[in-house]
Amino acid sequence: MTAVKHMKWWGWGKDGVGFHHEDKPGFAPFVLQAVGLDLGTATAVGEPAFTDISVPASKAPSTLLSALAGITGEDHVTTDDMVRVIHTYGKSLRDLVRIRANVIERAPDVVVYPADEAQVQAIVDAAVSADAVIIPFGGGSNIAGSLEPRKEEERAVISLDLGRLDKLVEIDEESGLARIQAGAQGPDLEAALNARGWTIGHFPDSFTHSTLGGWVATRSSGMQSDKYGDIAEIARGLRMVRPGGTLVLRPLPSTSSGPSVREMILGSEGRLGVITEVTVQVHRIPAKRDVYAYFFPTFEAGIHAMREISESDAAPTITRVSDAPETGFSLATSKDRKGFDKFLAGTVLPGLMRSKGWDLDKICISFIGYEGSVAHAKRQKKLVDAIVKKHGGMGVGKGPGILYDQKKFDTPYLRDFLLDRGAAGDVSETAAPWSKLIQVHDNTVAAANAAYAELGIKGWIMSHLSHSYHSGACLYFTFAFVFGDDPLGEYDVVKKAIQQAFVDNGATISHHHGVGREHSPWLEEDISVEGVAVMSALLEGADPGSNFNPGKIVRAGY
Amino acid sequence: MTAVKHMKWWGWGKDGVGFHHEDKPGFAPFVLQAVGLDLGTATAVGEPAFTDISVPASKAPSTLLSALAGITGEDHVTTDDMVRVIHTYGKSLRDLVRIRANVIERAPDVVVYPADEAQVQAIVDAAVSADAVIIPFGGGSNIAGSLEPRKEEERAVISLDLGRLDKLVEIDEESGLARIQAGAQGPDLEAALNARGWTIGHFPDSFTHSTLGGWVATRSSGMQSDKYGDIAEIARGLRMVRPGGTLVLRPLPSTSSGPSVREMILGSEGRLGVITEVTVQVHRIPAKRDVYAYFFPTFEAGIHAMREISESDAAPTITRVSDAPETGFSLATSKDRKGFDKFLAGTVLPGLMRSKGWDLDKICISFIGYEGSVAHAKRQKKLVDAIVKKHGGMGVGKGPGILYDQKKFDTPYLRDFLLDRGAAGDVSETAAPWSKLIQVHDNTVAAANAAYAELGIKGWIMSHLSHSYHSGACLYFTFAFVFGDDPLGEYDVVKKAIQQAFVDNGATISHHHGVGREHSPWLEEDISVEGVAVMSALLEGADPGSNFNPGKIVRAGY
Repeated sequence: MTAVKHMKWWGWGKDGVGFHHEDKPGFAPFVLQAVGLDLGTATAVGEPAFTDISVPASKAPSTLLSALAGITGEDHVTTDDMVRVIHTYGKSLRDLVRIRANVIERAPDVVVYPADEAQVQAIVDAAVSADAVIIPFGGGSNIAGSLEPRKEEERAVISLDLGRLDKLVEIDEESGLARIQAGAQGPDLEAALNARGWTIGHFPDSFTHSTLGGWVATRSSGMQSDKYGDIAEIARGLRMVRPGGTLVLRPLPSTSSGPSVREMILGSEGRLGVITEVTVQVHRIPAKRDVYAYFFPTFEAGIHAMREISESDAAPTITRVSDAPETGFSLATSKDRKGFDKFLAGTVLPGLMRSKGWDLDKICISFIGYEGSVAHAKRQKKLVDAIVKKHGGMGVGKGPGILYDQKKFDTPYLRDFLLDRGAAGDVSETAAPWSKLIQVHDNTVAAANAAYAELGIKGWIMSHLSHSYHSGACLYFTFAFVFGDDPLGEYDVVKKAIQQAFVDNGATISHHHGVGREHSPWLEEDISVEGVAVMSALLEGADPGSNFNPGKIVRAGY
Repeated sequence: MTAVKHMKWWGWGKDGVGFHHEDKPGFAPFVLQAVGLDLGTATAVGEPAFTDISVPASKAPSTLLSALAGITGEDHVTTDDMVRVIHTYGKSLRDLVRIRANVIERAPDVVVYPADEAQVQAIVDAAVSADAVIIPFGGGSNIAGSLEPRKEEERAVISLDLGRLDKLVEIDEESGLARIQAGAQGPDLEAALNARGWTIGHFPDSFTHSTLGGWVATRSSGMQSDKYGDIAEIARGLRMVRPGGTLVLRPLPSTSSGPSVREMILGSEGRLGVITEVTVQVHRIPAKRDVYAYFFPTFEAGIHAMREISESDAAPTITRVSDAPETGFSLATSKDRKGFDKFLAGTVLPGLMRSKGWDLDKICISFIGYEGSVAHAKRQKKLVDAIVKKHGGMGVGKGPGILYDQKKFDTPYLRDFLLDRGAAGDVSETAAPWSKLIQVHDNTVAAANAAYAELGIKGWIMSHLSHSYHSGACLYFTFAFVFGDDPLGEYDVVKKAIQQAFVDNGATISHHHGVGREHSPWLEEDISVEGVAVMSALLEGADPGSNFNPGKIVRAGY
């Protein structure tokens, strides 16, 4: 069988790796206070047994299976139940709750692993000719419901796994452009680039298990995008297989060749074809890279400082500031109490903060990253430090920044840990102009808390500003609650409240997770009825047979 | 009648303003050497007489005219011949040659000047209901053939002039966002912003006579876009009237709400609807703004320096380097011989260059702009100066940069001056990765010269790098020749050779002028057959009745 890496079929990440809190003394008290879950007494459900899972039988006709095997060889086509389950869902809370509850309404009927673009083309042509559905699959980290077949789909559904298209094809060193196949996962492509002195500079939270093609298909953004740009800026050239031929966009720094087809493919979630290769901007690994931590007396002060930094000549690589609840969470999940954390947990820093009149329940931690030559990074920091000071903040050195770097990809494991113990957690992120950010933040928190009150449960919500732009920023919310008998019913109440607060306050439905099925109910409120009409003209016109991941992005109802 | 500013019906710019060379002693010898035109003996055709022009009768049915008058009032609807001629063409060479030759194959049947978005909506609905064609009109500066009705169009054609929608609506000072109506012309909107301490930072060569809506509709770029971004980055929110409703994209710093509808509207040249308002990023006017001049021994050295600057931490506002022919042109059109030019024309600088072993026929002038705080601009220049020196270049101070700033918008007048005297001039611009730029440049120049040889005429072509990106740059070509009996036939041979060289060498058909009719023959070679298929799905699906500027961007044949 195909040797493509997959995550656990029932949760995030690698088999055998999980979150633990034995070395994080502040964690259990924090969870008890935040959502009322006592980790000392909570019973953890173990890893589910695949034998308990009922997988719908494959509907793939034998003619289609033969055709696929004729293209890739029999070793790379499978109707195996486990493989089909792995390709049924992404890793959203909705996905994880359902798989643990043995709810698999519609699995793909067959999973195929092509070796190259020619095989992708042959698969697409065979699938369309058989009126089958094609759902491209990268790392499977999606949390917007972009991967799941429509429940009512009666045609054969093919999950087209790009995992074997994982090569760094070539680097144009003069232009800073790298051709990389779409199925390459973050760590692999970055290692291949690093080996030649380059970096893509794209590090989404899903980095360890997501692919280049998936980043493009969902308009991904990473934690250093302030400097390197979102994937929409990074992806300069594209190849996408369509029925009868391959769409080729040569790498260009910019163009005015009509409405941007490149930007139509970005965020298309498989609805226009199968992305096979992307030519991305790459950068020389900088001489200097540091992440410094700061504290602000309030979230407002932090936001105002980030805004002024974005307007300044500093141009840092990372701008991040957590609200007070998330600051509390960050401090509670720190494990290295020998370093900075000990300092913070001690008396010196709190004493200093109190002497400034700060309310320790309102303090907010911020991380700001600097890159470039040593002199450039130093100058960036000098400009930022002055702005932080102007807004009443203070720098606390590199220690927490190092911790931030170390644990930045661990959060999804934490969610599985909590889910095992009866608490549901998920994320929603958005973007808005600077003038609306505080309102978006406060009203979203209020909406979530109102939803918790309506449900009569103790819930938690926290947030950070994760990316700054000239005219605004991304706010990233994490929420959790101990669920009752109907986890997804309760989740829907909270998730709906949050998304509705976004659009009601001038923010977008998603900054970098995409639309899928999870966010599509708010698409009209985000881009207007006519905006959806124009988008639908594209999606329907380019796929008249609805063979490519139908029902995603634009759909009726919830 | 409506008091909307229009350019000369027969040429560029304001009535009574034109190019003259009495104060530029190097100009006449340069033109003689370049294209063999002796300005001392050449006879200039005067301003054409409108009475000589045959304007096709308006085909607008009286019911449509009444409907339009009912919407805007009779004063703002006209079938006047002069007004219809003004709205027939842009200002491409093809347009100017035809209007001077009394060739008007298809003029719009009626010109309407709505006062606000509600009137635009009513006009669009009335037009679609009457199965009329709508062509939005801004400043009329287009040079890609985007404005002209199809020759074979039998339905009534409405030129919808946005000239009365010219207001700065509001500035969100916290977010650096300004709502501006689409018909606002460059100098007016910039003056309104400047009055409140802001700048849009968008200065295309057409700035003095182009509009915000036109910039968006053609994916415009300006001479300071290295810092401020192309219009695609600057335009954050949009309003576009479509049949039955207005498409509203709220201003957002970034979003992953599916394929970008914002990017579908950018470059759409009126084919998706009528843009009525744009919310743009604006910036505080910087404390310091300087443009410095440099010389390089060769164009290759200049290109390599620009590439290294783009990779550095310097991030200047303007990066421009002319090839040797354009350097010669720049020196020949300088008028201030008291300042830098006298210095250059003298013995000190040429002597210094010769002492470095430079061939004075190969030297290239470069302009690099710095903005920000005084300290920041100084630091940018220090970083750039080191890179220039590394590539064998030398700085020559601010003098030429001041001249460059003063005359940057004058070139279109020069074209009319030459056309009056029998020489045709036009421009073609493109973008390509750094690794292909020299090849694109050299092969384009060779292709143009081969075309001149084929025609048996003396022709001229020159070029500059006008914008730098991480992965490549824009090359801007200007070409001219003394025409014979068939100016447009000869022009086609040269223009075709240039555009074909672009796509054959990995460059795009246009970096910022759009596609229109002029560049559409090469669209498939630029974005591939499937790319055109996807774009067509959008354009045809969103306008099933072909009521919006049909035939532009995508069309068959030449």
